[in-house]
Amino acid sequence: MTPMMSKTEAADLVTTARIRGGHTWAELAAAIDAPLVWTTAALLGRHPLTGEQAAKVCGLLGLDDAVAEALVRQPARTADPEIMTDPTVYRFVEAVNVYGPALKELIHEEFGDGIMSAINFTVDISRRPHPDGDRVVVTFDGKFLDYRW
Amino acid sequence: MTPMMSKTEAADLVTTARIRGGHTWAELAAAIDAPLVWTTAALLGRHPLTGEQAAKVCGLLGLDDAVAEALVRQPARTADPEIMTDPTVYRFVEAVNVYGPALKELIHEEFGDGIMSAINFTVDISRRPHPDGDRVVVTFDGKFLDYRW
Amino acid sequence: MTPMMSKTEAADLVTTARIRGGHTWAELAAAIDAPLVWTTAALLGRHPLTGEQAAKVCGLLGLDDAVAEALVRQPARTADPEIMTDPTVYRFVEAVNVYGPALKELIHEEFGDGIMSAINFTVDISRRPHPDGDRVVVTFDGKFLDYRW
Amino acid sequence: MTPMMSKTEAADLVTTARIRGGHTWAELAAAIDAPLVWTTAALLGRHPLTGEQAAKVCGLLGLDDAVAEALVRQPARTADPEIMTDPTVYRFVEAVNVYGPALKELIHEEFGDGIMSAINFTVDISRRPHPDGDRVVVTFDGKFLDYRW
Amino acid sequence: MTPMMSKTEAADLVTTARIRGGHTWAELAAAIDAPLVWTTAALLGRHPLTGEQAAKVCGLLGLDDAVAEALVRQPARTADPEIMTDPTVYRFVEAVNVYGPALKELIHEEFGDGIMSAINFTVDISRRPHPDGDRVVVTFDGKFLDYRW
Amino acid sequence: MTPMMSKTEAADLVTTARIRGGHTWAELAAAIDAPLVWTTAALLGRHPLTGEQAAKVCGLLGLDDAVAEALVRQPARTADPEIMTDPTVYRFVEAVNVYGPALKELIHEEFGDGIMSAINFTVDISRRPHPDGDRVVVTFDGKFLDYRW
Amino acid sequence: MTPMMSKTEAADLVTTARIRGGHTWAELAAAIDAPLVWTTAALLGRHPLTGEQAAKVCGLLGLDDAVAEALVRQPARTADPEIMTDPTVYRFVEAVNVYGPALKELIHEEFGDGIMSAINFTVDISRRPHPDGDRVVVTFDGKFLDYRW
Amino acid sequence: MTPMMSKTEAADLVTTARIRGGHTWAELAAAIDAPLVWTTAALLGRHPLTGEQAAKVCGLLGLDDAVAEALVRQPARTADPEIMTDPTVYRFVEAVNVYGPALKELIHEEFGDGIMSAINFTVDISRRPHPDGDRVVVTFDGKFLDYRW
Amino acid sequence: MTPMMSKTEAADLVTTARIRGGHTWAELAAAIDAPLVWTTAALLGRHPLTGEQAAKVCGLLGLDDAVAEALVRQPARTADPEIMTDPTVYRFVEAVNVYGPALKELIHEEFGDGIMSAINFTVDISRRPHPDGDRVVVTFDGKFLDYRW
Amino acid sequence: MTPMMSKTEAADLVTTARIRGGHTWAELAAAIDAPLVWTTAALLGRHPLTGEQAAKVCGLLGLDDAVAEALVRQPARTADPEIMTDPTVYRFVEAVNVYGPALKELIHEEFGDGIMSAINFTVDISRRPHPDGDRVVVTFDGKFLDYRW
Repeated sequence: MTPMMSKTEAADLVTTARIRGGHTWAELAAAIDAPLVWTTAALLGRHPLTGEQAAKVCGLLGLDDAVAEALVRQPARTADPEIMTDPTVYRFVEAVNVYGPALKELIHEEFGDGIMSAINFTVDISRRPHPDGDRVVVTFDGKFLDYRW
Repeated sequence: MTPMMSKTEAADLVTTARIRGGHTWAELAAAIDAPLVWTTAALLGRHPLTGEQAAKVCGLLGLDDAVAEALVRQPARTADPEIMTDPTVYRFVEAVNVYGPALKELIHEEFGDGIMSAINFTVDISRRPHPDGDRVVVTFDGKFLDYRW
Repeated sequence: MTPMMSKTEAADLVTTARIRGGHTWAELAAAIDAPLVWTTAALLGRHPLTGEQAAKVCGLLGLDDAVAEALVRQPARTADPEIMTDPTVYRFVEAVNVYGPALKELIHEEFGDGIMSAINFTVDISRRPHPDGDRVVVTFDGKFLDYRW
Repeated sequence: MTPMMSKTEAADLVTTARIRGGHTWAELAAAIDAPLVWTTAALLGRHPLTGEQAAKVCGLLGLDDAVAEALVRQPARTADPEIMTDPTVYRFVEAVNVYGPALKELIHEEFGDGIMSAINFTVDISRRPHPDGDRVVVTFDGKFLDYRW
Repeated sequence: MTPMMSKTEAADLVTTARIRGGHTWAELAAAIDAPLVWTTAALLGRHPLTGEQAAKVCGLLGLDDAVAEALVRQPARTADPEIMTDPTVYRFVEAVNVYGPALKELIHEEFGDGIMSAINFTVDISRRPHPDGDRVVVTFDGKFLDYRW
Repeated sequence: MTPMMSKTEAADLVTTARIRGGHTWAELAAAIDAPLVWTTAALLGRHPLTGEQAAKVCGLLGLDDAVAEALVRQPARTADPEIMTDPTVYRFVEAVNVYGPALKELIHEEFGDGIMSAINFTVDISRRPHPDGDRVVVTFDGKFLDYRW
Repeated sequence: MTPMMSKTEAADLVTTARIRGGHTWAELAAAIDAPLVWTTAALLGRHPLTGEQAAKVCGLLGLDDAVAEALVRQPARTADPEIMTDPTVYRFVEAVNVYGPALKELIHEEFGDGIMSAINFTVDISRRPHPDGDRVVVTFDGKFLDYRW
Repeated sequence: MTPMMSKTEAADLVTTARIRGGHTWAELAAAIDAPLVWTTAALLGRHPLTGEQAAKVCGLLGLDDAVAEALVRQPARTADPEIMTDPTVYRFVEAVNVYGPALKELIHEEFGDGIMSAINFTVDISRRPHPDGDRVVVTFDGKFLDYRW
Repeated sequence: MTPMMSKTEAADLVTTARIRGGHTWAELAAAIDAPLVWTTAALLGRHPLTGEQAAKVCGLLGLDDAVAEALVRQPARTADPEIMTDPTVYRFVEAVNVYGPALKELIHEEFGDGIMSAINFTVDISRRPHPDGDRVVVTFDGKFLDYRW
Repeated sequence: MTPMMSKTEAADLVTTARIRGGHTWAELAAAIDAPLVWTTAALLGRHPLTGEQAAKVCGLLGLDDAVAEALVRQPARTADPEIMTDPTVYRFVEAVNVYGPALKELIHEEFGDGIMSAINFTVDISRRPHPDGDRVVVTFDGKFLDYRW
């Protein structure tokens, strides 16, 4: 028996096939009728796809069943300190460094003692046109959870 | 000559006076007519206030000139690894760990090779009512900057 | 204005007064009619007390208002890597190192893709008599949260 | 001579065969008549199986003798800092960060100077139905060991 | 489908072919009519080449399409802590350690609160003849970005 | 005997007096007829001043002899990992992360095996007007040192 | 109320008084009729003394009740990475680095799957005369604990 | 020419053959007439064997000359932070954390300023029967070396 | 009782008095008739002085008995990672990084399996005149210790 | 095209051939008429050989052109934190930890503000016979470089 393909290998193959086939992430998201950030994260290994979703993606990209099997598997969503240093990702790290304490204060002021869930949670990204240069708008939307005994 | 009060000491005094006086961050932001997250971050030491803003805040909170002097000073916005482990802040760290690589892919797909600025950048927070429990909505809005030689 | 006493200073004073007065944590928990682990954690700075709870504790221990003020304040629940190396605490770290991956598998098998909340969450500790030596029994009880978009 | 298969490789093959064969961890635990968390941890490489247990598991999953040989071998139970950042596992880390010092206080109050053994120790997990959403209940049960010269 | 060659592998092949063929980085930069530091960084995996640029470089060096495909791909510009300890690179690290705080002061004095962009940014290197030994002159030239809400 | 004031305390006092007196770094550099970056770095504790330079600076800023004594003392130029995370300083760190390997290649191509000295070394900063926004230009100029036995 | 003296402060005072009074650790151990390593560790803050022991030690050394109170208190036995680099201590670290894996093999060979307890555990040190130079002999003696569910 | 087998590969093969052949470490030590801990450490890659010793071990275990060649080679005895977290090994780490400072004090009290050598040094392990459960006894025996100029 | 002055405080006072009094390290070494590097290291807290040496140094520098008491005390020679980043000290770190593995090979080739003692060890520093610029010559001289059971 | 052999692989092959052929490092140094430490470091990958030197070494050791090609290539001299923990190498680390600050003081006292170059720098090792056991003598000899603007 050969061990299951890892999610990382599957993501490499999805990315290779996506680029060679000229497909966008948006196109893949549309194909499985799922949110854009969710789909991209899932295909990079951060969420499990359903069997049907995996089959559709692999069909579209010409990838075999071993990839689909890996995409369906329950992921471990471990941190990758290396990618955090990529400048495009680092700006998010920096934003949390600079504004994290303020966001904490304001969550407590508005909601009380608790957190924004990162599980019951969605992320969206969009382009906002602006005369001085268009802007990236990223929205985190998570259920408030209060410390409750 | 005594050295200038540090931004940390000033933030401690602002916080003390804010709590004892029963003032909200929103009230302080309104007093200086500035955005909520900006004001909170600034009073915690992350942005310099103008002399006028500092005077208004210190007047409202009953703090002396030494605090105002510190609030006006240019900050160093250094990372604090300790506060990153607070559960309320950590959920933002986790969101970046889990979704950072997907956001990078989608910024490049939509805008090309570059980043969302964390300098020409605003953050907003709001409460979104929801039947299953209200939600924290945080929006990052930064100018796209392309790698340009 | 003097800055508010830190939660750490307050915890040192609570501990000092508790030991000198011969009070147990259980007694303090009973005094404020709150769970044992919650009360201990709160007095060590991990949860905010209500004004009434803080007043009761400070009255019982002979501590002044500055301590009560600190106990009421919203905490930052930051990690302390140093205390993690204390042998009594380290055994919990080791248990998570050894059994964490198995618990992850079993949460997913029983509940699907998600987590045990550490916010909507209680901890209990008890002594279980055993002929070979009594046992420490610690129970973590958290709401299951599924990844939900 | 080829070197023995590592416990990690064996765990990958067990996991692959388990998923492909549609077996649950609970089913594997029942097959060898061992506790659920123990079995899962053991098959992930954290405890040695007896030869008989390994043979049963490999028979059930259709794995060859090299896997059984690896499962029987004495493990090194080393920490994996990467998996600690997976959100499902991280909540246990966070619980120990937040409540570890309180648990230390209460162990000492109830038992005196010593620790909860992580060796003479069992872990159990169960689902507790709850109208607001079912709950994950994890119990650590370890013998108290006192510092004794 | 075989996964796309990594940028690291491509850089190894470019370097191998460049050395075996006796080509300089300057010659490669001239071949694609691009700045010297930009070209070198791009071929080491730090910037994406256009298809035309990649084709020219691979033609000149006798490398196949798989290398070109990798060179065109969007990079992750992650930090490599190991290469930072190479003495030639470390001197830049040391210069930032020693002079970074002074540069911060002077950027704020001259431009106000903000940063030198590292994205809208060029780097140049040249040799400056000097009787006591020629000098390496490295110029960082980045657009000033002010903190702007 | 009281121990000598540390360079950090001296830098705090210089900064306090500089801001309160409305002096620029450029003005201080002119007062001692020394380069701008050198002067700023020296007053922040990175280079020793001569007794004459220290006397002039302290005279101008109204600081006493204890400050001058500290400014004259031989410094330890230790790295401060915290300030490296300030966004204004971090952009230099990022530039070295992204372009360091390319600069290493080009130093070796032009000069052979060796380094740019960070000791026989000057740094300059200037403003370059640009229609799209003025630019920060930082020049590192160090003697080439070859590995020589 | 003043907070209780820390174990570190108490250890500093014990050490000061011990040296000024010309007392050896052995003498202190004899005074409280306790093992030498245990006593030294306890007075350095690693074990709680009984009230009687603390009173005897403080009487002998001329220290006041605040020291005794601190010595009696339950300790946190946290690791101190800094002292691990002291050459005298580091040799123990090195011995564990070099021989730890072999000791693990031999514990398992002789006892089965388990550990040497570090809690039900004693340490002894002695001088062994030797013609080539006397030797330090340190003995670790801990109860074997098997993994037992 | 193929590069020499690494000590790690050799140790894996020794361990594989040892387990498959049903040999104990004690048996291997007897075969080469060397101390038990030394032999185990050496076969795990921590000491060089003589050619004769390597030949005997490889003969007994049925391993080829490539293994013997690796066992004879001078080792690098580098630390492995991962194995330090294995519970069986960690107890030694914990013992050094808890008792290291006391051992330092007692070495200086008995011998003066210096260290226990970790080079002119032996380790022994034995089982000590005890009615409450047998004990692991580990003895470190190293020559005292004084700081001597 | 006030706790003994730390070695760090004593070193600060020695340094202050040395500079204010215009004394060189060489002069202090001569005063106590001890090697130059030893004396400097000892006065910085790395070696204990005899009572007589401490008295002479404190007499010469006009320091009181509390300093002498600290200088005589047994030191902990802990590593200071911060000072390792000072450029003057870092060059030694870099030399060990670059040449450490070669020195290991050559010690083994010349002496066999063992180390250069860092305890039975002296360090010397001298100036070697050279037409291209004088040179710093540092000599490490330590007894060879072989691994010996 | 196959990528160039890495310096690490080349060093492994040189070491293998050196040991199998019974050659010493001294013999290899003599063969290319270069200093002993330089040659050893270069063959371990720390310095580039000339084509002629590489050809001689590979001829002597029976290694093919791919090894020679790798030996000639410009190295990256990156730090290897793992080998720093080998006891033979660690003693150099410890010496720098213990004596680094003293060496810094003495370089400044003798030469002024600057460093010992680690580039214009040689290292030598020799055996010094001594009745109490022969000694390892390592000499660092680097040009003094002053901070010069």
